[in-house]
Amino acid sequence: MVVVMRPGASLEEIEGVCEVIHRHELESLLMPGSVMAIGIPSAIPTDLRDPLEQRIQILPGVSKVTQVSRSYKLASREFRPDSTIVEIGDVRFGGPEVVVMAGPCSIESYDQLKRSAQIVKASGATVLRGGAFKPRTSPYAFQGLADEGLRIMKRVGHEVGIKTISEVMSPDMVGLVADHVDILQIGARSMQNFPLLIEAGKSRHPVMLKRGPSATIDEFMLAAEYLLAHGNSKVLLCERGVHPLDRTYTRNTLDLSAVPVLKEISHLPVIVDPSHGVGVAKYVPTMACAAIASGADGLMVEVHPNPREALSDAAQALSPEAFESMMQKLAVFAEVSGRLCTPKRVGP
Amino acid sequence: MVVVMRPGASLEEIEGVCEVIHRHELESLLMPGSVMAIGIPSAIPTDLRDPLEQRIQILPGVSKVTQVSRSYKLASREFRPDSTIVEIGDVRFGGPEVVVMAGPCSIESYDQLKRSAQIVKASGATVLRGGAFKPRTSPYAFQGLADEGLRIMKRVGHEVGIKTISEVMSPDMVGLVADHVDILQIGARSMQNFPLLIEAGKSRHPVMLKRGPSATIDEFMLAAEYLLAHGNSKVLLCERGVHPLDRTYTRNTLDLSAVPVLKEISHLPVIVDPSHGVGVAKYVPTMACAAIASGADGLMVEVHPNPREALSDAAQALSPEAFESMMQKLAVFAEVSGRLCTPKRVGP
Amino acid sequence: MVVVMRPGASLEEIEGVCEVIHRHELESLLMPGSVMAIGIPSAIPTDLRDPLEQRIQILPGVSKVTQVSRSYKLASREFRPDSTIVEIGDVRFGGPEVVVMAGPCSIESYDQLKRSAQIVKASGATVLRGGAFKPRTSPYAFQGLADEGLRIMKRVGHEVGIKTISEVMSPDMVGLVADHVDILQIGARSMQNFPLLIEAGKSRHPVMLKRGPSATIDEFMLAAEYLLAHGNSKVLLCERGVHPLDRTYTRNTLDLSAVPVLKEISHLPVIVDPSHGVGVAKYVPTMACAAIASGADGLMVEVHPNPREALSDAAQALSPEAFESMMQKLAVFAEVSGRLCTPKRVGP
Amino acid sequence: MVVVMRPGASLEEIEGVCEVIHRHELESLLMPGSVMAIGIPSAIPTDLRDPLEQRIQILPGVSKVTQVSRSYKLASREFRPDSTIVEIGDVRFGGPEVVVMAGPCSIESYDQLKRSAQIVKASGATVLRGGAFKPRTSPYAFQGLADEGLRIMKRVGHEVGIKTISEVMSPDMVGLVADHVDILQIGARSMQNFPLLIEAGKSRHPVMLKRGPSATIDEFMLAAEYLLAHGNSKVLLCERGVHPLDRTYTRNTLDLSAVPVLKEISHLPVIVDPSHGVGVAKYVPTMACAAIASGADGLMVEVHPNPREALSDAAQALSPEAFESMMQKLAVFAEVSGRLCTPKRVGP
Repeated sequence: MVVVMRPGASLEEIEGVCEVIHRHELESLLMPGSVMAIGIPSAIPTDLRDPLEQRIQILPGVSKVTQVSRSYKLASREFRPDSTIVEIGDVRFGGPEVVVMAGPCSIESYDQLKRSAQIVKASGATVLRGGAFKPRTSPYAFQGLADEGLRIMKRVGHEVGIKTISEVMSPDMVGLVADHVDILQIGARSMQNFPLLIEAGKSRHPVMLKRGPSATIDEFMLAAEYLLAHGNSKVLLCERGVHPLDRTYTRNTLDLSAVPVLKEISHLPVIVDPSHGVGVAKYVPTMACAAIASGADGLMVEVHPNPREALSDAAQALSPEAFESMMQKLAVFAEVSGRLCTPKRVGP
Repeated sequence: MVVVMRPGASLEEIEGVCEVIHRHELESLLMPGSVMAIGIPSAIPTDLRDPLEQRIQILPGVSKVTQVSRSYKLASREFRPDSTIVEIGDVRFGGPEVVVMAGPCSIESYDQLKRSAQIVKASGATVLRGGAFKPRTSPYAFQGLADEGLRIMKRVGHEVGIKTISEVMSPDMVGLVADHVDILQIGARSMQNFPLLIEAGKSRHPVMLKRGPSATIDEFMLAAEYLLAHGNSKVLLCERGVHPLDRTYTRNTLDLSAVPVLKEISHLPVIVDPSHGVGVAKYVPTMACAAIASGADGLMVEVHPNPREALSDAAQALSPEAFESMMQKLAVFAEVSGRLCTPKRVGP
Repeated sequence: MVVVMRPGASLEEIEGVCEVIHRHELESLLMPGSVMAIGIPSAIPTDLRDPLEQRIQILPGVSKVTQVSRSYKLASREFRPDSTIVEIGDVRFGGPEVVVMAGPCSIESYDQLKRSAQIVKASGATVLRGGAFKPRTSPYAFQGLADEGLRIMKRVGHEVGIKTISEVMSPDMVGLVADHVDILQIGARSMQNFPLLIEAGKSRHPVMLKRGPSATIDEFMLAAEYLLAHGNSKVLLCERGVHPLDRTYTRNTLDLSAVPVLKEISHLPVIVDPSHGVGVAKYVPTMACAAIASGADGLMVEVHPNPREALSDAAQALSPEAFESMMQKLAVFAEVSGRLCTPKRVGP
Repeated sequence: MVVVMRPGASLEEIEGVCEVIHRHELESLLMPGSVMAIGIPSAIPTDLRDPLEQRIQILPGVSKVTQVSRSYKLASREFRPDSTIVEIGDVRFGGPEVVVMAGPCSIESYDQLKRSAQIVKASGATVLRGGAFKPRTSPYAFQGLADEGLRIMKRVGHEVGIKTISEVMSPDMVGLVADHVDILQIGARSMQNFPLLIEAGKSRHPVMLKRGPSATIDEFMLAAEYLLAHGNSKVLLCERGVHPLDRTYTRNTLDLSAVPVLKEISHLPVIVDPSHGVGVAKYVPTMACAAIASGADGLMVEVHPNPREALSDAAQALSPEAFESMMQKLAVFAEVSGRLCTPKRVGP
């Protein structure tokens, strides 16, 4: 059960609700956000549910009482029937627009990122991606430019006029990364890094949360719930492929049916990352179109000015030409899906 | 290495090629088809490859010699660069058309199947599906009408004027099923039923082979290779979902990235079955559109005149209204994918 | 609910029970076996269960009525609390003995099989394995000696004095294989070959059923239920590894926790096949010991007189020396597990 | 290629090696440890390998040069053929002893942990486990006592005379946790939390690294490589179950074949956690015995003074009686595996 308070409810009113909950030997949980909500995480005896709802409904400061059947609450559509729109400047996730985030796997230099930003913006992408801290499977692989990369990204974002996203890998870095980019990315391997989720939640900075490679939908939703329960309502969900049957042809299995499932059970915007999802550049444009058809609110795609020279994930980065061509196709698929896609707006 | 003979090559010419192969202590394998091909299944020493190719190339009756790097040969695009078109009357798989096969999970009665056939044909599907023999996980579930179901399907197919497809589950039934339907379906759980593959191969009747729930792409291709190596070139590949991380929201994980992979490595048409792939009717139309966007040559979809009364797989069957609505959407997605889709032709 | 009839119950008594079931608008299902049982496969309304049980309990010919909560009935321990002992001559599965079945992957010749039989018998194995029909992933791999292999196996079994097991791959071959070997093996890729399960069930010949590579425990139990529901009570369950995360080091992931689970939920003997389970000979003895420790009633192990010359699965076959050494270890592990193992008895 | 320097090699000698490496346009990587090693992470042209090895071999300060074929180097047995013994006081991992680590999932109070410590020590366990920071899937589940829990563990460890292990979840907490417990645990969900691995590596405090739920063996080894490459050689590998086919009967699939694989490819001790591996208390003792049989160097098991009252993971905790009984069995299995197990030594 979740009790949503009215905007501006007083501390006294909030305590009044908690007191009633405690009187029934139930635990209460404060879930701050744009308005305060009070959750009852434990199971409520069946015969107590309706009387308790009625009892709380009439308390001062209470806006509504919702009985949520799932283990995640704030992230569910039962709790919030309307789709959440995450707005970052003039970029809107979760509305009719399909937002494309694109850029190199790693920030390698100012020149490389600036060229990338110009290329992706010219093709209609509105968010620039790029890794400053890279989660590399091997300790001997390129680990990213770290702070220097963040500074480059901030500068390029301003100069080119494009929003930015970059990964944060540990809780103590949340503040630093949030100071430099518009959206924090929490990677697949960090999906259940709970201290990181808590810090990113408290930061209230927009966050894109990637699904872990063997995470069930419920585990994914509960990870998002951490962000929401700690006060952050600007959360994007990102499907990026699950552990595959084998890796002969693709790096992961892109689970596109997760898109309609997530759109139904959650009010949060859903992004698809076909670059990591398949891991092979030649299949990315096709799967990006399929992601749009499956109802995705946005895409994250790897583009590199010169894929052969990329310091990481070279095999999955699109060339500028392939990206431009993909964007043209995406616009058409977005249109027939009843969506907008930025290439339409930048076209001649 | 595969040696493709000229059409009408004589037995002597074929034996001449085999003799040269054997002289190098290699094994030869006859692969009959529209033309005879002779494969060398074992590895050829590196320094022998080029001289052997040149030696065979000039033998009488030889059309071309191909060095195939994969474990499957006849099913690979290396062997046959052009896409195979499987024609069944005026239904063509693998060309510009997107073919929709639809109908109930099980054939329950003449009336049920006839109504189904009329419904799906009216919406633009050109093949009627329906199970006479049902592979049911539980021995206590409805097992299908068997021979009676086949007779119903043949009659309905003729009366309504629609091609038909139905599953065959054992090698001794191949002849019987082939006598009653236009396309044999080999189900996911039979993908590695090798005696069945051999019989279906020998029958030369069109076959749709479904991918097993934990089959890798190579295992899937090798199962198709059985059909081709036994003389059947009318083979459709069908992706129908792989074993999922869990079954809370979907029955399987539809692996749409298999579509562009299969289209690249094989010349055979690729079908997607979103009904089994997700197992939940409400997600089927979305995933059908995504399948078209991923490049599928056709779809197999479950439709029931009255899903609530279906004797099997009720949860995943579309109602006639939902199917009609989906077909309208599919036509649009097919068009922007540069494909044709039958609803366009039956429209006003 | 399952109604177990007394031995020798009359047709009239059986029909009497069915009539009562039908009067409550429920379906009945005859499950012949050593005694006739009558199942009610569909769900029974909660408030009807106890009255119905009492009503049936007093009918003539009824031995007992069991309310089984699982989807499989005859295979469950709820239905038969005592462990089933499958006896084949003096080989007993499911009792205190740990039975070892061993031999080559494929029957290659009379000499090869005879030497194999002598080797495995000398080390204490009591069942000889060997494939006459081989389910090979590639159509170009060695496919087995077929009928000739079966005749060799029958002859060797008699000459050496050892029980035999071989795989049957299609329903029309059940009779032939049963005429030549003591135990029918149904392979992992045939676990849901339902026509085959039905024929093997009807044959009443002992059957070892292997778990499919992505089969859940319930799917495995329901496959066994097919055998039981068609009259065969001599069923062995075999865990042989599930689809792995990758194949760099092992061919499959041997799921040993399936052993205590199966022993708890079912009364049937449980066998483990570490050879296919890991697919690498050097790990087989270790995993065989672990299988004993996990409670397995038997093992199936590949041994070849000369593994390097094996025509199939060479990488996973033990040499005679490695097998002998493993058997010594197994005997010790069996003993501390409170089990008997044949090497003890053949020792000096 | 890895160049191992002599103990006490001078900075000049190290630089001399790097210079030769760089002269061949290769990158060098310093891998500090008990002795300095210098790795060449990138691929070396085939024809350069032998001359380069010979060239470096004779440089001053060089002890040996190893050509390592795997992507992980320091963790491989190619690099260090002898098994590593991790010693923590008189507890030795990787030698003949089988070490049992046991205790509650969460530290709930001083009394609960003290009773747990006394129980597990009395039965022969030599390390006490207990979570202060709990990685809980749901934000609404019990999150642990945090710092207070660490203080309780330190006190109980001293009072009872038992070594301790507890999980660390973020890099900034490494120092704090290392101050309070003898072994840092890095959980399955943190296996690829690279900033955490780096800090735990630098700390040189003993670490037990758990395998991620869908981590391949190579990914697991590369995570261990992070610890080693940052200077920590006291690393324990822990198999704790991989993502299962379904969760009807067990929480995960315990991959025991990983044990002989890891023992072969790595010199590091291998621990098995059957409690998380199966997640059901009744199966834990059986799987613990199987783990010993598979060659594990140690076990981690959940025990709670009163499992029904446990605040987390109640379903998988053993009661004191079940634990004592399991320890008796383990001692027998350890003995027949040629290992020592502590219950033998504490017995009467």
